[in-house]
Amino acid sequence: MKLYENAIAPNCRRVRVFLAEKGIDVPGVEIDIIGGQNISGDYLEVNPNGQLPGLELDDGRHLSESAAICRYFEELHPQPPLLGTTPFEKAAVQMWERRADFEGMLGVADNFRNRFPPFENRGIAGTSNVPQIPELVERGRQSVQRFYGHLDKRLGESPYLVGDSLTLADIDAMCVIDFALFSELEIPQSHSKLRAWYDGMESRESARSNPGLTAALGSISKVLGG
Amino acid sequence: MKLYENAIAPNCRRVRVFLAEKGIDVPGVEIDIIGGQNISGDYLEVNPNGQLPGLELDDGRHLSESAAICRYFEELHPQPPLLGTTPFEKAAVQMWERRADFEGMLGVADNFRNRFPPFENRGIAGTSNVPQIPELVERGRQSVQRFYGHLDKRLGESPYLVGDSLTLADIDAMCVIDFALFSELEIPQSHSKLRAWYDGMESRESARSNPGLTAALGSISKVLGG
Repeated sequence: MKLYENAIAPNCRRVRVFLAEKGIDVPGVEIDIIGGQNISGDYLEVNPNGQLPGLELDDGRHLSESAAICRYFEELHPQPPLLGTTPFEKAAVQMWERRADFEGMLGVADNFRNRFPPFENRGIAGTSNVPQIPELVERGRQSVQRFYGHLDKRLGESPYLVGDSLTLADIDAMCVIDFALFSELEIPQSHSKLRAWYDGMESRESARSNPGLTAALGSISKVLGG
Repeated sequence: MKLYENAIAPNCRRVRVFLAEKGIDVPGVEIDIIGGQNISGDYLEVNPNGQLPGLELDDGRHLSESAAICRYFEELHPQPPLLGTTPFEKAAVQMWERRADFEGMLGVADNFRNRFPPFENRGIAGTSNVPQIPELVERGRQSVQRFYGHLDKRLGESPYLVGDSLTLADIDAMCVIDFALFSELEIPQSHSKLRAWYDGMESRESARSNPGLTAALGSISKVLGG
């Protein structure tokens, strides 16, 4: 089995932190996103969309999409359960996963990909001829702010997003926020519940052993200015 | 239990066709999207994102996001299984769900919401102050064309998107295509596998008893010109 990934890409980090919480070790193959290795040649056989991560099974079959890869490992290794235990929790994990994707990750990606010079013609992940749209920078920022508000409200009701223990929903949201901070979309000071929860998430061994963009590179300004 | 929905909204149709395939009947509450009933007042208690569908349980808890609502019913009523049976199938259903969402539904939504006059300040579903971005009309069109290509390739290998029988992945893709046709994004003639599969899907009793936008209204031109 092989996991095609980029060590600091947000969606890859979701899978790595998930695997670390499960105690599962999977060999990785590093793919250079900035150099475009994911959108050319062999990798498109793994995932025709050109997005990371991608999983190759020993029989040659492939899976892509981070949530789908996590589902596969949850089915193979049910303990500890990270996708919920009751019907309601299982559904709620998926609900928060999708909020993390649509409101969070897509918001940051819009904000980031449409202003970061190396992605000049890569306005959508996995593509090579989609021009940037500068107006999406602001639309993305607003979407992330809404996501922060929903998280802070929820974390005022519960120590984790779903139920009383960690699930993939928390991991997803943490990885979104790490990417958002790299893109300089700060969590408002007033969101104290969210800030405390985020600090707790980043201090877990699973997160520290799989550092994200912010821990590795600082911020977009630092990368571009340095 | 109550399902807040709009009879012809694409994500609501996903849930209704899924429930029909399961033989589950859930009372519905119709919400007027064009009139903005989903983004104001009481409905925001059901789903703070203002998106449909939303499920209210008898104990007052809520679930939103079509995939999460389907997951809930799959857990309560496992037969017939519509989210896969083996670990690989379960993961693959989720992979195709997400392709349907990110490449398909988001592509159509970008194409549609950024040019349809009633959504002038509603460039993202569930919002009231996000201006349209005309360049997303073309970006969305290209994304849908890529989705069509991936579906046609897969349907050349298998009668359904995952395994040998219907899953939610097929229902999701059908509902995306119905919305795409309403938005006048035709399936290329060359994609014969996809066209045949789509005709088969739309002729199922579950689809005919829950008609989508195209069957109900024709097309965006017909609505705007009529």
